[in-house]
Amino acid sequence: MNMEKIITAAAGREPVDALFINGRVIDVFTGEILEKSVGVKDGYICGFGDYEAVKTIDLEGMYLAPGFMDAHVHIESAMVTPLQFSRGVLPCGTTTVIADPHEIANVMGIAGIEYMISSADKALMNILFALPSCVPATHMETSGATLNAETIAPLLTHERVIALAEMMNYPGVIFTDPDVMAKIKAAHVVRKAVDGHAPGVRGFDFNAYVVAGIASDHECTTAEEAMEKMRLGIHIMVREGTCAKNLEALLPAITDHTWHQMMWCTDDRHPEEILTQGHVDYIIRKAITSGIDPIRAIQMGTINCARYFGIRDAGAIAPGRRADMVAFNDLNYPVIEQVFIKGALVANGGKPVSSNHSTSIPDAPEVMFFDLNAVDFSIPLPLVSKSHVDQPHEIGIRVIEVIPDQVITRERIVTPIVQDGQVVSDPANDIVKMAVIERYTGKTGMFTGLVTGLGLTRGALASSVAHDSHNIIVAGVDDQEMRTAVQAVKTMGGGFAVVRDGEVVASLPLPVAGLMSHEPMDRLDHDMRQVIEAAHDLGSPLADPFMALGFLALPVIPKLKMTDKGLVDVEKFDTVSLFV
Amino acid sequence: MNMEKIITAAAGREPVDALFINGRVIDVFTGEILEKSVGVKDGYICGFGDYEAVKTIDLEGMYLAPGFMDAHVHIESAMVTPLQFSRGVLPCGTTTVIADPHEIANVMGIAGIEYMISSADKALMNILFALPSCVPATHMETSGATLNAETIAPLLTHERVIALAEMMNYPGVIFTDPDVMAKIKAAHVVRKAVDGHAPGVRGFDFNAYVVAGIASDHECTTAEEAMEKMRLGIHIMVREGTCAKNLEALLPAITDHTWHQMMWCTDDRHPEEILTQGHVDYIIRKAITSGIDPIRAIQMGTINCARYFGIRDAGAIAPGRRADMVAFNDLNYPVIEQVFIKGALVANGGKPVSSNHSTSIPDAPEVMFFDLNAVDFSIPLPLVSKSHVDQPHEIGIRVIEVIPDQVITRERIVTPIVQDGQVVSDPANDIVKMAVIERYTGKTGMFTGLVTGLGLTRGALASSVAHDSHNIIVAGVDDQEMRTAVQAVKTMGGGFAVVRDGEVVASLPLPVAGLMSHEPMDRLDHDMRQVIEAAHDLGSPLADPFMALGFLALPVIPKLKMTDKGLVDVEKFDTVSLFV
Repeated sequence: MNMEKIITAAAGREPVDALFINGRVIDVFTGEILEKSVGVKDGYICGFGDYEAVKTIDLEGMYLAPGFMDAHVHIESAMVTPLQFSRGVLPCGTTTVIADPHEIANVMGIAGIEYMISSADKALMNILFALPSCVPATHMETSGATLNAETIAPLLTHERVIALAEMMNYPGVIFTDPDVMAKIKAAHVVRKAVDGHAPGVRGFDFNAYVVAGIASDHECTTAEEAMEKMRLGIHIMVREGTCAKNLEALLPAITDHTWHQMMWCTDDRHPEEILTQGHVDYIIRKAITSGIDPIRAIQMGTINCARYFGIRDAGAIAPGRRADMVAFNDLNYPVIEQVFIKGALVANGGKPVSSNHSTSIPDAPEVMFFDLNAVDFSIPLPLVSKSHVDQPHEIGIRVIEVIPDQVITRERIVTPIVQDGQVVSDPANDIVKMAVIERYTGKTGMFTGLVTGLGLTRGALASSVAHDSHNIIVAGVDDQEMRTAVQAVKTMGGGFAVVRDGEVVASLPLPVAGLMSHEPMDRLDHDMRQVIEAAHDLGSPLADPFMALGFLALPVIPKLKMTDKGLVDVEKFDTVSLFV
Repeated sequence: MNMEKIITAAAGREPVDALFINGRVIDVFTGEILEKSVGVKDGYICGFGDYEAVKTIDLEGMYLAPGFMDAHVHIESAMVTPLQFSRGVLPCGTTTVIADPHEIANVMGIAGIEYMISSADKALMNILFALPSCVPATHMETSGATLNAETIAPLLTHERVIALAEMMNYPGVIFTDPDVMAKIKAAHVVRKAVDGHAPGVRGFDFNAYVVAGIASDHECTTAEEAMEKMRLGIHIMVREGTCAKNLEALLPAITDHTWHQMMWCTDDRHPEEILTQGHVDYIIRKAITSGIDPIRAIQMGTINCARYFGIRDAGAIAPGRRADMVAFNDLNYPVIEQVFIKGALVANGGKPVSSNHSTSIPDAPEVMFFDLNAVDFSIPLPLVSKSHVDQPHEIGIRVIEVIPDQVITRERIVTPIVQDGQVVSDPANDIVKMAVIERYTGKTGMFTGLVTGLGLTRGALASSVAHDSHNIIVAGVDDQEMRTAVQAVKTMGGGFAVVRDGEVVASLPLPVAGLMSHEPMDRLDHDMRQVIEAAHDLGSPLADPFMALGFLALPVIPKLKMTDKGLVDVEKFDTVSLFV
């Protein structure tokens, strides 16, 4: 921002670049709708008034609001780079996001965060960052990096970094883990926000969590929990993502007394929902139709977020702020007609104005360090059991049970089918092999077990998207097909692969850290539908078998999960044996 | 703050130091009144709940609110050191102030600011600082220091410094003065607030002012002006000081939509009003009796201020914040019964609990660098006029006219009384000599002219409190008595002196920079009444002749003022000749 240049225009000593006239300007500070012209110079708002202007933009009576802000989002969940995310989401009117690059950081550490920042630099959207606070998520898995306080501190002063992201390690806070304390203090020193993540944490424990200066939470699932947290000063990010939708439950907590302490976020939102429903605009429309005052719904998607994070140059149509604005016709159901970034039209009628968008693609190094020859999916019976080979019914084996549309699982103990001293898949009973292969150290650490509920009757699925460490996860009926699927993922540098009858029948490359595509979001969505269709063709009844697969390696959500180190009983927060 | 220690107690693993029970706790986040116990450890609030406690404090049903915050105050205006200010104001329930040491900075520069910080370190009150942005106020006077961006930048990172103070030099902003720009940018870099001061500035000029990221204003005198500024995102500090009282005028601007962008401040409040009316508590009571909801009035005096400045550890009764709290019985007219700082009772029934207060006094160097022998109050006629000595009626002289109870003056042109080619006082017509003597360089630069409206019929008054440069100002009938008064001020190292019949009949030492006393506020107030009485005895009908005198050297408020460099016509923003 060339402050001097903008002041000079604001004071009227030079013409503004553009004057937006005939708009009904939503003033998020006073809640008023003002019929005033807005002057823009050098991408920033100079102020209101009848400025002499190089160019005039006639809004013809449309409402003009500040561009929307998403207070907490993992861009990786949209499976495209920040550059393509920007292109895909801008037509929804989201002009600023606070991105937590937690996924890529688990894969690539600081280099991953730097990749996201460099991609953000090329994007039109105002992409700001909250630094991942919990990499790796647990000690029971191998991730691509460990980020401690010393590692992340230098990045905290980066101009795009405005917060320490969701502190998921709430036991670490409550029990004053030194590295957790150091990370939080480092953020405080530079006066940046520390975001929370404390689902269901209450009472004394939550008091302790708040003492650390953690100031937000996006995990509330009931209005009562939100009220309880707001009473301690916590800002509530009301989430409407693909996996978690909390708006309806939190509506009663949005009151005349609390609303200015609340804002919207998407957390994880998949391309399909972004493309069909929308983004923050969707949340705003849903809030309005749920009875929230339209101006307030917009304030929660703009200035409230800006104030919480101390962002001075976004969140309002006011002097000195980025001229990021949205125009729409119906205040009671805002469908975004036009989106302006730094005063320039970047989306019109729901479509990006493509000439404005960068096409240069930042390089991303491949992260696929495992040896396919070392991969072995055999599940030998334990030695003690081999003598009982004639009585396989005496052996029990833990099986992960997928529950449709949920990220929690159950543990089932079954008697495995054994062939030649090896456990094999039992597709007739919807029990197939599943493995997690570590892709970071080159040592090819891996673990193989059984899963039920995926519904696979044949073939194999493999993916490099497996929260939070994003090792290779594969499930299938047959060892060789599993290997073929893993090979396909490796060859692509990451992504999804579906194998049937020994052949790769569908695949989707996610070459950026094995998480994201360089393709546009609509193209990605199209390809995604194809791999899902191919997975359905293997027998899976799940809406999105890859999404289900992606949560089976996440050892922080109950009950039974699998990492490269083994089966994890999340309630015990420890690994457990395969055989019982 | 020992975060780990407080977390440990908050989590219930160790007893808290104190548990405040049976209070009706005002939750400034949700606006609720909660009947919950408050645990305190190591001076900080752990949280709500029935903690095991070393000590229990029974509030017997009283309301418990966070200690009040004054968003903008010049402690120098209370004429006592920060240490004594703390002692005097704490009984009113003000536990945090954002002090702008503008006056002492004009006298002593960075050393003055450092003195205030070191005195604040010894005070019980939470005294935070906004760095003076405009020292000296103008080029038309000699001050004790020049603070440019380079000088103040290192102090911006001090933990007690949370803002750049009132940017009075709005032309410097609007015309992008490089040093003004550099100061503002330096504050932005460290994410600290930049306070405004722009009385009556509107339209394009105010747009330009806001582009610079200036975020508050405490100079609004009408609700319309406040609304206009809030629409641009400016936070309004509603001022009730001794010289300016704006609450009544701004009441219509305090609405359901705007209140969270507003807060209270005193700016300049003299000991008499503090001792008889109160401080922020007085503003809160006045707001409530004017129709503002009591909780809201308290929120404006606590959390709104904390949020604006990004103060994480004050402004609310919530985990991790200082246990600075006030207790009172009547929510509709809160008279502060008990005040707690970091959990300890520091004031009770309007009186300080003295054992808690430090008695060690930080040293302050004397700033009185002028040569009494070089002081000469004669006003010789200009050479061109001396030939007309027989026609003195043909000579005109500019006289500063004091207007009772106002800081503006008028210019009068009169025919002077001349004796031996020198202009002399004309007490019969309420015209006496006035001089400003520069006290910083040792060169004893000075200027002598005439003033009317002080009402002096005999004797002389001298003072070292003369905004903003605080040179020595003196007025009197007789040159010798003026000299005696100046000598008295010099001998005290600063202060007020009244001379009658050649003798010093009353004096008040202000040895700290010539602005502040080490005495307690009530003692200062008592002494102040005596010097004012002595001044009245010289014939002055003004309520406070020293306050009137103190504004006669302020060359930023119209019309005619005097500095050591001469007479200043403020409307022309330049010096003008004495004779016309």
